[in-house]
Amino acid sequence: MTQKFGAGIWHFATYVDRYATDGYGAPRTVLEAIDLAGRVRDLSVVDLNYPFFGGEFSNEQVAETLKRNNLGVIGITPEIYTRTFVKGAFTNPDPGVRRLAHELVTEAAEVVRYFGADYVKLWPGQDGWDYPFQVDHGALWKHSLDGVGQLASENPDLKFVIEYKPREPRVHMSFDSVARTLLGIEKIGLPNVGILLDFGHALYGGESPADSAQLAIDYGRLFGMDVNDNMRGWDDDLVAGTVHPIELFEFFHTLRKNNWEGVWQLDQFPFREDSVAAADHAIDFLKTIERGLDRLDMDALRQAQERHDALGALAIAQRALYSAH
Amino acid sequence: MTQKFGAGIWHFATYVDRYATDGYGAPRTVLEAIDLAGRVRDLSVVDLNYPFFGGEFSNEQVAETLKRNNLGVIGITPEIYTRTFVKGAFTNPDPGVRRLAHELVTEAAEVVRYFGADYVKLWPGQDGWDYPFQVDHGALWKHSLDGVGQLASENPDLKFVIEYKPREPRVHMSFDSVARTLLGIEKIGLPNVGILLDFGHALYGGESPADSAQLAIDYGRLFGMDVNDNMRGWDDDLVAGTVHPIELFEFFHTLRKNNWEGVWQLDQFPFREDSVAAADHAIDFLKTIERGLDRLDMDALRQAQERHDALGALAIAQRALYSAH
Amino acid sequence: MTQKFGAGIWHFATYVDRYATDGYGAPRTVLEAIDLAGRVRDLSVVDLNYPFFGGEFSNEQVAETLKRNNLGVIGITPEIYTRTFVKGAFTNPDPGVRRLAHELVTEAAEVVRYFGADYVKLWPGQDGWDYPFQVDHGALWKHSLDGVGQLASENPDLKFVIEYKPREPRVHMSFDSVARTLLGIEKIGLPNVGILLDFGHALYGGESPADSAQLAIDYGRLFGMDVNDNMRGWDDDLVAGTVHPIELFEFFHTLRKNNWEGVWQLDQFPFREDSVAAADHAIDFLKTIERGLDRLDMDALRQAQERHDALGALAIAQRALYSAH
Amino acid sequence: MTQKFGAGIWHFATYVDRYATDGYGAPRTVLEAIDLAGRVRDLSVVDLNYPFFGGEFSNEQVAETLKRNNLGVIGITPEIYTRTFVKGAFTNPDPGVRRLAHELVTEAAEVVRYFGADYVKLWPGQDGWDYPFQVDHGALWKHSLDGVGQLASENPDLKFVIEYKPREPRVHMSFDSVARTLLGIEKIGLPNVGILLDFGHALYGGESPADSAQLAIDYGRLFGMDVNDNMRGWDDDLVAGTVHPIELFEFFHTLRKNNWEGVWQLDQFPFREDSVAAADHAIDFLKTIERGLDRLDMDALRQAQERHDALGALAIAQRALYSAH
Repeated sequence: MTQKFGAGIWHFATYVDRYATDGYGAPRTVLEAIDLAGRVRDLSVVDLNYPFFGGEFSNEQVAETLKRNNLGVIGITPEIYTRTFVKGAFTNPDPGVRRLAHELVTEAAEVVRYFGADYVKLWPGQDGWDYPFQVDHGALWKHSLDGVGQLASENPDLKFVIEYKPREPRVHMSFDSVARTLLGIEKIGLPNVGILLDFGHALYGGESPADSAQLAIDYGRLFGMDVNDNMRGWDDDLVAGTVHPIELFEFFHTLRKNNWEGVWQLDQFPFREDSVAAADHAIDFLKTIERGLDRLDMDALRQAQERHDALGALAIAQRALYSAH
Repeated sequence: MTQKFGAGIWHFATYVDRYATDGYGAPRTVLEAIDLAGRVRDLSVVDLNYPFFGGEFSNEQVAETLKRNNLGVIGITPEIYTRTFVKGAFTNPDPGVRRLAHELVTEAAEVVRYFGADYVKLWPGQDGWDYPFQVDHGALWKHSLDGVGQLASENPDLKFVIEYKPREPRVHMSFDSVARTLLGIEKIGLPNVGILLDFGHALYGGESPADSAQLAIDYGRLFGMDVNDNMRGWDDDLVAGTVHPIELFEFFHTLRKNNWEGVWQLDQFPFREDSVAAADHAIDFLKTIERGLDRLDMDALRQAQERHDALGALAIAQRALYSAH
Repeated sequence: MTQKFGAGIWHFATYVDRYATDGYGAPRTVLEAIDLAGRVRDLSVVDLNYPFFGGEFSNEQVAETLKRNNLGVIGITPEIYTRTFVKGAFTNPDPGVRRLAHELVTEAAEVVRYFGADYVKLWPGQDGWDYPFQVDHGALWKHSLDGVGQLASENPDLKFVIEYKPREPRVHMSFDSVARTLLGIEKIGLPNVGILLDFGHALYGGESPADSAQLAIDYGRLFGMDVNDNMRGWDDDLVAGTVHPIELFEFFHTLRKNNWEGVWQLDQFPFREDSVAAADHAIDFLKTIERGLDRLDMDALRQAQERHDALGALAIAQRALYSAH
Repeated sequence: MTQKFGAGIWHFATYVDRYATDGYGAPRTVLEAIDLAGRVRDLSVVDLNYPFFGGEFSNEQVAETLKRNNLGVIGITPEIYTRTFVKGAFTNPDPGVRRLAHELVTEAAEVVRYFGADYVKLWPGQDGWDYPFQVDHGALWKHSLDGVGQLASENPDLKFVIEYKPREPRVHMSFDSVARTLLGIEKIGLPNVGILLDFGHALYGGESPADSAQLAIDYGRLFGMDVNDNMRGWDDDLVAGTVHPIELFEFFHTLRKNNWEGVWQLDQFPFREDSVAAADHAIDFLKTIERGLDRLDMDALRQAQERHDALGALAIAQRALYSAH
């Protein structure tokens, strides 16, 4: 089987932030972004924001653009973090806004069905807090779980994946870590809720991404993943493999060891780079990793790990990865 | 009821580190440390390392020294992080060392019974990893849970508390966060395993300690707590309240709101300070906090929190705390 | 003399970020922002972004709006971090863009003269790098200094202040710390270049803001300052005093001890809060600090500091600050 | 010319910390450590702590042991961070202790002369502060510079190198960054004071080590360097190249580009690893880096950097490094 690669469609958008309010480039429509995605070597699927950005587009228009670019849809990400939701989606203090979040995700579920995608991706980035004393933490967490749980139980035919992240745009996000998210998912207690593990979120949250992946797998909840890189202090969304190649290699080794088969996705924000080149650069490195995994002496590695022999294990891993480049 | 205060007996020891290998002062025996603890205003209980440091001392000698200082014992902390265990206690690659850890904790359990203490405190600081690829993460975590679980099931008359911490002395510690530890405790599935929440560990792990406390309470697992302060990047074990008074106040507010009644303990390392003065300074501030809680307008605060009104809530909290000084 | 308070006019704008691309509220013009600033108790001056945001406004329109709100202008901040400059202003690889930066700042200098403001504020947030190997570090730093130096030498009648910051929006910013900026200023060697010290930037850069202030003062380069708060890991721009009151108090103590007399400014981004309330909340706390400084036993503090007696010094500081609330 | 490799002799010692107070292994004498160093492939020089650890040894004994291991001495590190100096060496509040620090370094200078070493290495790890308000920052900094300056002016025949570090064992260290240290060195104004740049200290201080090296070189102050690795949050002193190979490669590229010729040293603390294996592992990777530098297309890289083309530059660097393994 050939490894499939994917990317969030926002990889091919342009961005704004609180300083460059006029954007890091001219705005693009989702259709233009899909056409860019189509130019990446070896990209098979995309994750689409919903509503579609840059204008009013029908599912059919999007489907047609995808088709001519040979791209499928892996997930739909409802935008539950825009102006309406800046004080929270599932945890908004206003029940009317919580209802709007529910409605938007419910619409997104329909879009998942339309495209035959794998899941609804939930990234409740505005659910959390900024200041000490701002919220009742017990109530906030309950709202987080109730919001997700209700959607999952109303849509038993679909998978819902939660992408946790330590912070940004909130100073602290409710679903902040792999363990907290698993704890919440176990409390919800439904089979169709899982984790979308973002390598960079784990890394800058102080986790070892390989350990996070193993834990999610052991709970049967690793429904998806994406990669990028950062400086361990913020969600920089840099090109995968450019800063922390060894830990990225360990992450993928953990997936293979557990026979986890799924799409290797990119979640990068190439603010100042050419987005097609950024995706190609990352995928080239992911292919190095794939070859490196083929060359990895799994038996010798397992034996070194049984002794907790860091240097022995690293020598095996370094040799396999670098010789595969 | 008057609030009781406690401290780890190591608060009154002297320290070494990798640079000042000759120590930050002349070594002290546990008996000398207890005599120092006795000089702190308003200290009721201590947590004792086991084996007792500084010489060979019987339980009786320790008990007598405690008695003349009017001190009780809240917990016993077996030293499962010394030379024997530098590659791990519960997770050591050598089953013989894992057995030694088991035996040492079992002995500590007897000491808990002798002193009528509340719990065996487990701080498996050497259980974890340093390098990528060093360990099989699934196996390591299983060993962590098995080690604790076996002890808890063999000693159903006692409570075992796990003190999690992100790192140090390992680059990454197995029980690294409140959520991971709760996840493990739920997996163990025994009623006598809980959390000892260290305010500073939560803080430098990127948690909001108030949120961590609420979560542990909601799972019925907050068996103990201690406080200190740091710069959010390391376990500095500074004097409580000196750097982050507001978050400390929010932490205690959360305990009171949930009617959590237990000892307020100190886990400070006054490397260069007089240890009695450091304890007095902290307890003075904890009493300010206690008075501040009495003055806190709980109704108004709850209403502000229902709106997620950070500035309204903070105005109430700041007024109550500062006016109580 | 009564202490004067100021604020960046962006405090009263609304914001966008990479997620809430439709903004944390409806856009506001600079004139509307000034009218909001006018509603803050005890605000005397503002720092204005240039070009004026939200439309085409003449200096006269802005002056009139300021006048009816009883506000003066302390500084002008040319926007050398918008789309044109996303790959750098002074350090842009394209000499044409470097020229545009020069021209924009030169225009801003004219606006400083028009308003009789104190300084041109330079915040070259896009000057830096994101990836290893991306730039020639020597050349980049030289461009940074040449760009500032040329402006300062062409406008000897004006002061130029550099606001350093560790990172954001670049992964690493050229003027990243107080010491680096002073080193650069000394190299430039002109009397009219100084530092605008942002308390939060120092804090999350791992500096002690009080130490940073002392160093800048000792070089005669502390030309301005502003305050806010954060969680030490990012430039959260929270309301001043809400998280780190003691270090804020030490910062202002250092200013007073050195007879530094200047405006106490706010640089806050109240994304989800009422901006007038956020400014009032901060200024209320700054007044507490002012009263606290009046109560501070400077002699006793100096003696404790001569002994490096942390607990003694803190007891004096805590008493003075909290009793002033 | 063949690249020379060196190591701090403490690399071959055993360690204690505040938890494993009985050590991570049986104590070793400096002579035993030298014998271990002699077993490392391709080690030419060592940096020796002074006083010699593990017993009373004469210069002659040490020289003889070095000789039979074919090792030279690059520097002498006086232990100005042990019990006598826990409240500071150059900045100790007690002038008597400051004098002791001066005397110990003066003795170390004699040892440098005896061994014909390159420099006295100053690592004033206890000079700094722990708490807000603890010190008068201006006075502390002045003491730091006076202490170093006096020694340098009294020993004009010798070089003194300052090894800066953000923190540990103090919560904040006086010489905390490359820029602060250069600022201090320029203030001292003597030709024989320079920087010993530790890659890991720069990395966890949020610097780009390549940028730090360039800056120190541009001031003519890069007198020495050593390498290791860490997780960017603490001075873990892991084996070089195991976590951040790309930034290590960029660091050495910067040295070569500037024709900086000096020893490539290791400053690692293999707490739980075999120390000879840890040194060999690191030096193997440093040789990969050396070969990688030979393969690096410097012209193409320079052109990519002139465009700030991160992906282009990284592709060149990744290819050169990985193919050299």
